[in-house]
Amino acid sequence: MVMMKAAVFAEPGRIVLDDKPIPDVGPLDALIRITTTTICGTDIHILKGEYPVARGLTIGHEPVGIIEKLGSAVSGYREGQRVIAGAITPSGHSNACLCGCHSQDGAGTKHGWKPLGGWRFGNTIDGCQADYLLVPDAMTNLAPVPDDLTDEEVLMCPDIMSTGFAGAERGDIRIGDTVAVFAQGPIGLCATAGAKLKGATTIIAVDAVPARMEMARRMGADHVVNFREADPVAEIMRLTGGRGVDVAIEALGTQATFEAALRVLRPGGTLSSLGVYSGDLRIPLGPFAAGLGDHTIVTSLCPGGKERMRRLMAVVASGRVDLKPLVTHRFTLERIEEAYDLFGHQRDGVLKVAITP
Amino acid sequence: MVMMKAAVFAEPGRIVLDDKPIPDVGPLDALIRITTTTICGTDIHILKGEYPVARGLTIGHEPVGIIEKLGSAVSGYREGQRVIAGAITPSGHSNACLCGCHSQDGAGTKHGWKPLGGWRFGNTIDGCQADYLLVPDAMTNLAPVPDDLTDEEVLMCPDIMSTGFAGAERGDIRIGDTVAVFAQGPIGLCATAGAKLKGATTIIAVDAVPARMEMARRMGADHVVNFREADPVAEIMRLTGGRGVDVAIEALGTQATFEAALRVLRPGGTLSSLGVYSGDLRIPLGPFAAGLGDHTIVTSLCPGGKERMRRLMAVVASGRVDLKPLVTHRFTLERIEEAYDLFGHQRDGVLKVAITP
Amino acid sequence: MVMMKAAVFAEPGRIVLDDKPIPDVGPLDALIRITTTTICGTDIHILKGEYPVARGLTIGHEPVGIIEKLGSAVSGYREGQRVIAGAITPSGHSNACLCGCHSQDGAGTKHGWKPLGGWRFGNTIDGCQADYLLVPDAMTNLAPVPDDLTDEEVLMCPDIMSTGFAGAERGDIRIGDTVAVFAQGPIGLCATAGAKLKGATTIIAVDAVPARMEMARRMGADHVVNFREADPVAEIMRLTGGRGVDVAIEALGTQATFEAALRVLRPGGTLSSLGVYSGDLRIPLGPFAAGLGDHTIVTSLCPGGKERMRRLMAVVASGRVDLKPLVTHRFTLERIEEAYDLFGHQRDGVLKVAITP
Amino acid sequence: MVMMKAAVFAEPGRIVLDDKPIPDVGPLDALIRITTTTICGTDIHILKGEYPVARGLTIGHEPVGIIEKLGSAVSGYREGQRVIAGAITPSGHSNACLCGCHSQDGAGTKHGWKPLGGWRFGNTIDGCQADYLLVPDAMTNLAPVPDDLTDEEVLMCPDIMSTGFAGAERGDIRIGDTVAVFAQGPIGLCATAGAKLKGATTIIAVDAVPARMEMARRMGADHVVNFREADPVAEIMRLTGGRGVDVAIEALGTQATFEAALRVLRPGGTLSSLGVYSGDLRIPLGPFAAGLGDHTIVTSLCPGGKERMRRLMAVVASGRVDLKPLVTHRFTLERIEEAYDLFGHQRDGVLKVAITP
Repeated sequence: MVMMKAAVFAEPGRIVLDDKPIPDVGPLDALIRITTTTICGTDIHILKGEYPVARGLTIGHEPVGIIEKLGSAVSGYREGQRVIAGAITPSGHSNACLCGCHSQDGAGTKHGWKPLGGWRFGNTIDGCQADYLLVPDAMTNLAPVPDDLTDEEVLMCPDIMSTGFAGAERGDIRIGDTVAVFAQGPIGLCATAGAKLKGATTIIAVDAVPARMEMARRMGADHVVNFREADPVAEIMRLTGGRGVDVAIEALGTQATFEAALRVLRPGGTLSSLGVYSGDLRIPLGPFAAGLGDHTIVTSLCPGGKERMRRLMAVVASGRVDLKPLVTHRFTLERIEEAYDLFGHQRDGVLKVAITP
Repeated sequence: MVMMKAAVFAEPGRIVLDDKPIPDVGPLDALIRITTTTICGTDIHILKGEYPVARGLTIGHEPVGIIEKLGSAVSGYREGQRVIAGAITPSGHSNACLCGCHSQDGAGTKHGWKPLGGWRFGNTIDGCQADYLLVPDAMTNLAPVPDDLTDEEVLMCPDIMSTGFAGAERGDIRIGDTVAVFAQGPIGLCATAGAKLKGATTIIAVDAVPARMEMARRMGADHVVNFREADPVAEIMRLTGGRGVDVAIEALGTQATFEAALRVLRPGGTLSSLGVYSGDLRIPLGPFAAGLGDHTIVTSLCPGGKERMRRLMAVVASGRVDLKPLVTHRFTLERIEEAYDLFGHQRDGVLKVAITP
Repeated sequence: MVMMKAAVFAEPGRIVLDDKPIPDVGPLDALIRITTTTICGTDIHILKGEYPVARGLTIGHEPVGIIEKLGSAVSGYREGQRVIAGAITPSGHSNACLCGCHSQDGAGTKHGWKPLGGWRFGNTIDGCQADYLLVPDAMTNLAPVPDDLTDEEVLMCPDIMSTGFAGAERGDIRIGDTVAVFAQGPIGLCATAGAKLKGATTIIAVDAVPARMEMARRMGADHVVNFREADPVAEIMRLTGGRGVDVAIEALGTQATFEAALRVLRPGGTLSSLGVYSGDLRIPLGPFAAGLGDHTIVTSLCPGGKERMRRLMAVVASGRVDLKPLVTHRFTLERIEEAYDLFGHQRDGVLKVAITP
Repeated sequence: MVMMKAAVFAEPGRIVLDDKPIPDVGPLDALIRITTTTICGTDIHILKGEYPVARGLTIGHEPVGIIEKLGSAVSGYREGQRVIAGAITPSGHSNACLCGCHSQDGAGTKHGWKPLGGWRFGNTIDGCQADYLLVPDAMTNLAPVPDDLTDEEVLMCPDIMSTGFAGAERGDIRIGDTVAVFAQGPIGLCATAGAKLKGATTIIAVDAVPARMEMARRMGADHVVNFREADPVAEIMRLTGGRGVDVAIEALGTQATFEAALRVLRPGGTLSSLGVYSGDLRIPLGPFAAGLGDHTIVTSLCPGGKERMRRLMAVVASGRVDLKPLVTHRFTLERIEEAYDLFGHQRDGVLKVAITP
């Protein structure tokens, strides 16, 4: 049994680098040798024990790597090819997938639907903070990386770019829209970039960390509101001349941001929620127009699959959006525990880290 | 000054028949002689003082009548024509209207958007529980009634049919969908009918009043759950084999029904809310999949305007939906206070009353 | 090598019953013992040599049967289960599938798109007019048949119901729409049923065969125009009072019907084309408003996949649409050449035949 | 009777500057003193007699000006305000408008729909190449210009920006799409800009005039194909690696460009047509996949109305798109015949001219 290094969940508070066997390759799988990966905010929730996973599970869902071995039934790829896979790895064949709702894939369940079922890496199967990663349903999920893009350039595609853009897409942003984006962490920054890419002409970003506020402008924000210096609801209403916004994107996962998003929304507008909430949410009666405001509230889980990855890499290749500045720190896999420490405590202006096995 | 009879809001608890002058007709208006109208659940909220309107305002927003006089700038109609107008009377020219969001019309306001702004009859201007009604923006709102349809056959078009169908339309029901409709009052019954009309193949209606449960079946419900006899969430999950529903329509306006609608919704499904809520709403974390379930929540205010009315009358004329049985009681305008008493207390199996001046 | 009977394309003009080996089952396949199948208009094109397929290919793409054997990598099914598969068998994992465009699946091709690529049975691989059928990508395509539905009740699901309904769905028919359906063969009849199911309130069907005209009424047509007795364009304009239709569905595949569909379309309307054309089409300048009419023209290939089949069987189970009367004749597989003769010459009022191995 | 100068259609081949009375203002109208306008390709068709208008009609449909006088029933504006109106001036109250299809407005007609009915200026009523313009349905159509935008900066909003963007919007361009735009005249250039604004990441523009090819790059084209130097179909297939494009925009109005657009379209793609055709169109069988390619063909007439104008001016104000370079020449109204001569003969690299009364 050949061994590899992997960052595994040991117990709440501890993700440790450990030795695990390199996995066997089933007929539909592909084995990827990881060349670059990263740590996600969700991984910190796992670390803290806020999101439960099995002890011993390898963490990580943002892989860039090289195909090491293909399953016997996999065609259309070759070993040695550089690929990414999305954080969400839909089967392609469930009822959910066939309805276009790939993230809620329940392949193998009775009806083919399962909440969050498409999220497998570092959740229900071993993830990619390791030397090797086993990708299930490889033909649905492996996306070749164009030669002229570096690992770091495509490192945001598997999760934060896909999620952030989904906030703009599900909000159905139209040319000329005014959009507010609450919170400018990595997901919110990508939502800001996505809003611009979809044709929003006034984008108002909300945060309080100077480096994130600065980055928000680079991603396309026309205005940045510091919520420590001004009430963001009042400020957005002022900036929009009292009109409110067409689309409000929530990118943090708190009652305060959800509620603020609703309060700045014009009648008939859309609240596009990306955050992971940790408790019940309250919808205030007035901003909700007692249920008569023709509002739309949508939530999104990161879209995955190779076609999504292909499109996101096309965005990177086009130069329309440059997410490279989001990679603020670099570590080898050997030092991933340090990386968790830095990222988990949001020290040193960290946005995203690159991890290289 | 020629006088007419009108049901006016006197004070909380009292809507009384009073004498008011027949209104003058402005250039864009039309004066309608009311031949049939009805009372809406919203009027009961007004009666009870739960929804505030000015004292002395004429109540009612569901008019059928005859054009008595046209404003000087109105063309395309003739006096003596039988018409209806929607409960919501959009201007047609506001920014909201030009975005297709006619119910949130804010014509004359700074931005052209106003929550619920399209609802004027019996809210911000005099309504139709009277001998005469002044219809603003007549060219946008007057819809001629086909000769072969009776007043009572089109009486549901201005509000409950438009609202109930909107629940199905905004839910984006597709052929083969499974749909639950919570509450089978007049709006809920129309939502059930609308769900069938849109191609839902399993419709589960929830109520506890036998007459409404029976009517639900006539409107297209395949299953009717009595929430006094069984937990509706458990029962719907049983009926769907654990899958849940594609679309859940809330037609009452309570936390219990809103929450149940969310609990029976499959991942990726749509909660279409029609109810008028009277307090903050709570979204429970689990059924909301912590914000990661790809859910959609939409609210709708009754669509109005003459094209909507034309389409709804086409539904009536086609025989696809028969709402005549919803008219369970009839009163003259003189006896409208009795009608309010009956309808407000939901006595004698009342669903809708017809009022004839 | 165990042998079976199969209807194979021998040469233009000849489809013959022949002996072929029962196919081997690959890891992702399922072997189905056919219990009922049928002949499609497309098969007649193949018979006549108008649509080219390889000599020796087994014809047929509308299977109902029993799972005989499952591939080694197939889970979620059991042998002995009664199933159908769509005429179109998408892989689930191509770029086209992941975009929701399953019928244009190009799994294994460079980009994952191929025109008509999802149509494999009786086109690029052996079809189902045989004792046994090999279903590729079984997990994407096998849909269990509810116990209370007979083979004949679900026999229309794989192709004509899916195709006909797609005409209504892609036309985006809305409640209250007026719809014309050109030609009332099996596909057109299903388009008529689909238009009703989507909420059209005035459906005008066009044909000249009395039995089809009669069946059109049963499927939901409010008016049936005999194109041999009246100019259908003039008649539809008369029936709509000069307004034209919101959606026109073409279900034959000729210049005459395509053009008539455009001529009766109101500005801003949608022409939904289902027919298989055999030559270039001409768009007449006037009805096309010189390209300024805000028109939409959509074409559709039969949607497949197990979720589509599940939904269509739900329609059958609901009793909303009854397609059983479309099966006018029955043959054993032994007599399929007779069935081709009858169906190909449209004798004896044939609509669809049931073939039972 | 106070007189003004106006460019009127005299006879085929002659548009001349003439004296006409300043129009009277009806209750719903507004009189605008024109400060800047321009000439459109359509005006050249009128000049040549290819598009018929009444002799004596004032030409022009792209107005920027100052409110001189408001009709008695118009509210929400003040005299002296700087405004634009769209080339298309919907009433807001027709059935077409209430369906969201404002350009096909048939206010006053039997059904409320009329092909191209929303286009009134310089078509069915006097246009804006004059000292004064009468704007009908002023409350639907007048859009105040933000103080910080110049006349020339908003001069493209009424027509070419609205039309070109509509090509991208109706094509439903999504993030990561590959788009081809055939012809880079003013409309095509705006379609290119619109495609970028909607998130297309590979935009291939086709033209042969060097100045237009250069401008195409400034508007967002990633590749520009000179159709005189290479077969554009072959070149686009090469640039897309044989995949074809997701959306093809036709911006000229010829068989050659329409057909090329179809030939480069992937299965399931959308052909968005903006051109004004002058003869029947032919759809070639092969690229149309015999009607089985899940294609969509859409046509668009310039969207109008004040909300559209507000949004387009928001795009200008945001700096996302800079159309100022399209104004290549300037003339006073007195010299408009010279301007027609220059623009009609496409001399001196002209793209758009600014005309100032």
